[in-house]
Amino acid sequence: MRIAILGGDGYCGWATALYLSSKGHTVAIIDNFARRQWDFELGVQTLTPIRPLSERLNVWQQLTGRVIDLFVGDVADYEFLASTIASFRPDAVVHFAEQRSAPYSMIDRKHAVFTQVNNVVGNLNLLFAIRELAPDCHIIKLGTMGEYGTPNIDIEEGYITIEHNGRKDTLPFPKQPGSFYHLSKVHDSHNIMFTCKVWGLRATDLNQGVVYGTITDEVQLDEALINRFDYDEVFGTVLNRFCAQAAIGTPLTVYGKGGQTRGFLDIRDTVRCIELVCLNPANRGEFRVFNQFTEQFSVLDLALMIKLVAGKMGLLVGIEHLPDPRVEAEAHYYNAKHSKLADLGLEPHLLSDSLVDSLISIALRYRDRIDPSVFNPQVNWRETNNQRRTISALSPESLYSQEQVVPKAG
Amino acid sequence: MRIAILGGDGYCGWATALYLSSKGHTVAIIDNFARRQWDFELGVQTLTPIRPLSERLNVWQQLTGRVIDLFVGDVADYEFLASTIASFRPDAVVHFAEQRSAPYSMIDRKHAVFTQVNNVVGNLNLLFAIRELAPDCHIIKLGTMGEYGTPNIDIEEGYITIEHNGRKDTLPFPKQPGSFYHLSKVHDSHNIMFTCKVWGLRATDLNQGVVYGTITDEVQLDEALINRFDYDEVFGTVLNRFCAQAAIGTPLTVYGKGGQTRGFLDIRDTVRCIELVCLNPANRGEFRVFNQFTEQFSVLDLALMIKLVAGKMGLLVGIEHLPDPRVEAEAHYYNAKHSKLADLGLEPHLLSDSLVDSLISIALRYRDRIDPSVFNPQVNWRETNNQRRTISALSPESLYSQEQVVPKAG
Repeated sequence: MRIAILGGDGYCGWATALYLSSKGHTVAIIDNFARRQWDFELGVQTLTPIRPLSERLNVWQQLTGRVIDLFVGDVADYEFLASTIASFRPDAVVHFAEQRSAPYSMIDRKHAVFTQVNNVVGNLNLLFAIRELAPDCHIIKLGTMGEYGTPNIDIEEGYITIEHNGRKDTLPFPKQPGSFYHLSKVHDSHNIMFTCKVWGLRATDLNQGVVYGTITDEVQLDEALINRFDYDEVFGTVLNRFCAQAAIGTPLTVYGKGGQTRGFLDIRDTVRCIELVCLNPANRGEFRVFNQFTEQFSVLDLALMIKLVAGKMGLLVGIEHLPDPRVEAEAHYYNAKHSKLADLGLEPHLLSDSLVDSLISIALRYRDRIDPSVFNPQVNWRETNNQRRTISALSPESLYSQEQVVPKAG
Repeated sequence: MRIAILGGDGYCGWATALYLSSKGHTVAIIDNFARRQWDFELGVQTLTPIRPLSERLNVWQQLTGRVIDLFVGDVADYEFLASTIASFRPDAVVHFAEQRSAPYSMIDRKHAVFTQVNNVVGNLNLLFAIRELAPDCHIIKLGTMGEYGTPNIDIEEGYITIEHNGRKDTLPFPKQPGSFYHLSKVHDSHNIMFTCKVWGLRATDLNQGVVYGTITDEVQLDEALINRFDYDEVFGTVLNRFCAQAAIGTPLTVYGKGGQTRGFLDIRDTVRCIELVCLNPANRGEFRVFNQFTEQFSVLDLALMIKLVAGKMGLLVGIEHLPDPRVEAEAHYYNAKHSKLADLGLEPHLLSDSLVDSLISIALRYRDRIDPSVFNPQVNWRETNNQRRTISALSPESLYSQEQVVPKAG
């Protein structure tokens, strides 16, 4: 298949592009390097030293003989996006090209407006470009489990059948998103559903859980292919932060009680899910929703797991409860369905002690690059103008001599 | 009370501003005249010859001694909006300042993107400005009954209690909006609900039905205060179009079978609803949703009613069924609740033969200004690029000599 990966230089996008390329698909990456720019803006960097995309793609070609096309530009620029779709003629587009951090969207008004405009306009542009230029192309859109919030009933996959006053209908599952970012994904979902109805587009919305892991079969072929490992308070995810904290012996920081329960999955399952969805497209006019995660954990569950495994590795760390910077339930019912991808053949990689060990080992390998000042939350949901740090706690040597302090691969 | 009317030069906004001013409230209008600009763009005009806002406000002051403040600018411009809120210090803001036409949003990609960005950003700006500058101010936001679509169950007012797998929760009513415009209102509703939760704002979302009528006690004080009467295929509403068609003896154009059922209300009820909501504000942190309409009709019901009343007035008109340019159910279940405003004291003006007679009489009074070429739908929901007419069927005399052909008032 011809598959375009929008946002293919990012964390999920890069792993997906390599995986699909390795499976023999013709892959193109569409990216404007916004994700790298946000690191510059925030004064943070991925724990793993990622290479420029051109170098990544060259190494991939040298190692495998497979070529991944590259289109550099912004999906919010319609002329660029349309010319790219017309030129590449994809059978499927996988749309990762959005601002995906909840804290980033909550920094202040400009970041909230940017997040919603960027995500909504990019997605609208994609819908129009597919309708006008490739109407049979399957749109695979990354949503988030965070669109649902934490209702006091089971979360279904996109739709729920409601009986009410003696009548019945199957309707979109009610959404209660918890940040301007999560809201942008809800806006996208509604927009896509509408265009499937009026234009007969085919789309699958993947409400993905929190992804962990850096290693896939493809990225471990060479140090130059290494994927991101974000542990900072804005773009980092909770499991990565805990691993980085364990690696340098600082307490694992749990927001509030830690009863916040979410769906999680291994990045190796992300890439496999995308492949399964590409191989089993939605019908014309169908707006299909899958919940893409494999296990539920509370934040405190994860902290205890990391603490235990770190202890076995000789790393003694405590757990510290911070005031929750987010407005969210710290203890709640949570039972989200996730059978549709399993029905298509997904065999999950569950979170095990050995996997946690490997995640902590990656953090240890790059521990000289860990900046502990970026662990602490500085974006408070209750404020409209969060002043963020710009001074790093890393020594100048660490900042400016990364190549020297990074251990060699292998 | 100090009440700011965002979009106070538009149809609902103008009637509301005068009504609240007449009741002794201190009123400010905030407007950038976008609505007048869209008429220029589309080559159409309101049937009633509305005056420049400065003239309207001067006449209002001369007749009543009451001053309405005016702030000219765009709510999508945060600096303007924030300085206005800081200067006027409203107790309540009524937010009408959005692009409100479904066909306009469906013209092409640029109009779709404009509608969503304009509406979402203006609304986000308002939420931030209120949180930062007037956190106790009551936000009264105009939504639309079209946010709900036409589900096969009763439509509740904003929320529905769902029992599912032995558990129960009260959740936002699922939304199935039918155009990029209606989608923008759904996006707004989600954004407002979130800020009520995280910032403790107080807001009322008014999911309004289709408004008809031009005359309120205030606008009929003087011809210079006359309100809009839009009958064109883009900004006109169905009842206005039927009245204009009856006035010049052309068939009433029903889209499809005409079984499309919607909620309707008289503009005199719109202004009273706004007052009731101002006087009974939401609590801090509360996101309240009212369905603001008084009666349900199908489009065919309305056509038959107009045909009947027109016949009694000596105007013989037929009914013509056109292919539906929209993608919507032409026959469906529809039962929407609307008791919350009645509970606050609304006494509705129902649609009667005498009211229809008065609407047709207004169309007759200005019949020289009726351009029959703007009746026919030219925006097809199934297309992504609708080329619209720019040539009017009105004679040059009618277009360029409006002051001469308009009958004098009184």
